Amino acid sequence: MPHRYFTAEIGGGQAALTGSDAHHLADVMRARPGEQVILCGPDALEYIGTVTRIEPGRVEFTVTEGYPSAAEPRAEVTLYAGYPKQGKLEEVIRHSVELGVRRVIPFFSRYCVAAPKKEDAKNERYRRIAAEASKQCGRGILPEVLMPLPDFSAVCAQFSCYDLVLFFYEGGGESLRQIFAREPGLSARRIAIVTGSEGGFAPEEAALAAGSGARTVGLGPRILRCETAPLAALTAVMTLTGNLE
Amino acid sequence: MPHRYFTAEIGGGQAALTGSDAHHLADVMRARPGEQVILCGPDALEYIGTVTRIEPGRVEFTVTEGYPSAAEPRAEVTLYAGYPKQGKLEEVIRHSVELGVRRVIPFFSRYCVAAPKKEDAKNERYRRIAAEASKQCGRGILPEVLMPLPDFSAVCAQFSCYDLVLFFYEGGGESLRQIFAREPGLSARRIAIVTGSEGGFAPEEAALAAGSGARTVGLGPRILRCETAPLAALTAVMTLTGNLE
Repeated sequence: MPHRYFTAEIGGGQAALTGSDAHHLADVMRARPGEQVILCGPDALEYIGTVTRIEPGRVEFTVTEGYPSAAEPRAEVTLYAGYPKQGKLEEVIRHSVELGVRRVIPFFSRYCVAAPKKEDAKNERYRRIAAEASKQCGRGILPEVLMPLPDFSAVCAQFSCYDLVLFFYEGGGESLRQIFAREPGLSARRIAIVTGSEGGFAPEEAALAAGSGARTVGLGPRILRCETAPLAALTAVMTLTGNLE
Repeated sequence: MPHRYFTAEIGGGQAALTGSDAHHLADVMRARPGEQVILCGPDALEYIGTVTRIEPGRVEFTVTEGYPSAAEPRAEVTLYAGYPKQGKLEEVIRHSVELGVRRVIPFFSRYCVAAPKKEDAKNERYRRIAAEASKQCGRGILPEVLMPLPDFSAVCAQFSCYDLVLFFYEGGGESLRQIFAREPGLSARRIAIVTGSEGGFAPEEAALAAGSGARTVGLGPRILRCETAPLAALTAVMTLTGNLE
């Protein structure tokens, strides 16, 4: 399988890689003019790129017409993840990217044990981890990791951007299977998944989520750790929307 | 919620804890006669135990009639996991126990990078990890971790013990949703899930699995790491059998 690179510099039958990707292709892979790679552009389109020119820090290509990436799920899923302790968010990001997430947005909430600290630097690291995972698992886009939201009301304020918001609550709720069985049209839409940090959600937060349009759902009678819950939630949604088969 | 302890010494309205559990309850929790805990016995039955007697290394109880643990899935799922490198199996065990696995059986196969080494000592450690995870997530049984099987033919030789064997193959296969939609009776039965190590499966191994009665299924177009695949597979099966809601 040819190597995959992500680039925004693509259009009119031409494309280019710069920076570390150009270095990787030219110096590590020792590409020569005429060789082909897969280029992933914006909007989940993929292109076959043929190297035309190599110069320091830049590789240029002619490209075929773009085709939709087969690796991208039809559902566009955003994960709102309660900010966990230590390095757990990194593992959540890696797993989520493999499972097809479009966007990860961490947030702080009432019972969060973690507190904001050097979030700019951390966000840069999270984005690198997401990009690395995307290349390894063959994604057609680079999923984003946004800066953390300061509290749970900031999370709920974004719910109107989605066709379906699933609030995963330890108190249980609707059956996810029934939601998708009754409304199959939701499978290809913008879906938000909301899971909590170690401390879970305060009852007022659960009420606020429901009042802001979220559907409250459970993940069964066992207590999932805060790093397991987002993966289980994401896998369940991808399974039920036919994006994991 | 009262603390949970697992014991095999239970019957005739009486029960006892010994060893580290007795120490934990008597010396760490400072239990006194008359206090109540949840005792999980064999066969996924739970009991309310009332402390009657505390002596060094032993706590005795009277117990109520046992009731089936609400935390146990109706499907009895065994995970056959290709032996991964380093500490990854420990994380797979922790996640799997939370997701409701009954039994984890690691195996070596053609493309395994890991090789058998001090497996007796490792197995003891894996069992402790499973027991710890069971208590934390509120399981009604102690899932087992068996000694690793030496090769893939030893895995396939056990397929006849199950009502359904799902062989998760990077080459893709049947749709898991359709399998459970067409044969809903499978939801409450003995199910085996088979996932590979870093190197995946050799084509002969895939052929052997199919020839031994496994259904070959895929997990979608993205390449899942060997520590993500078992969690995705287990979550998908638990979701589709109604054991994660």
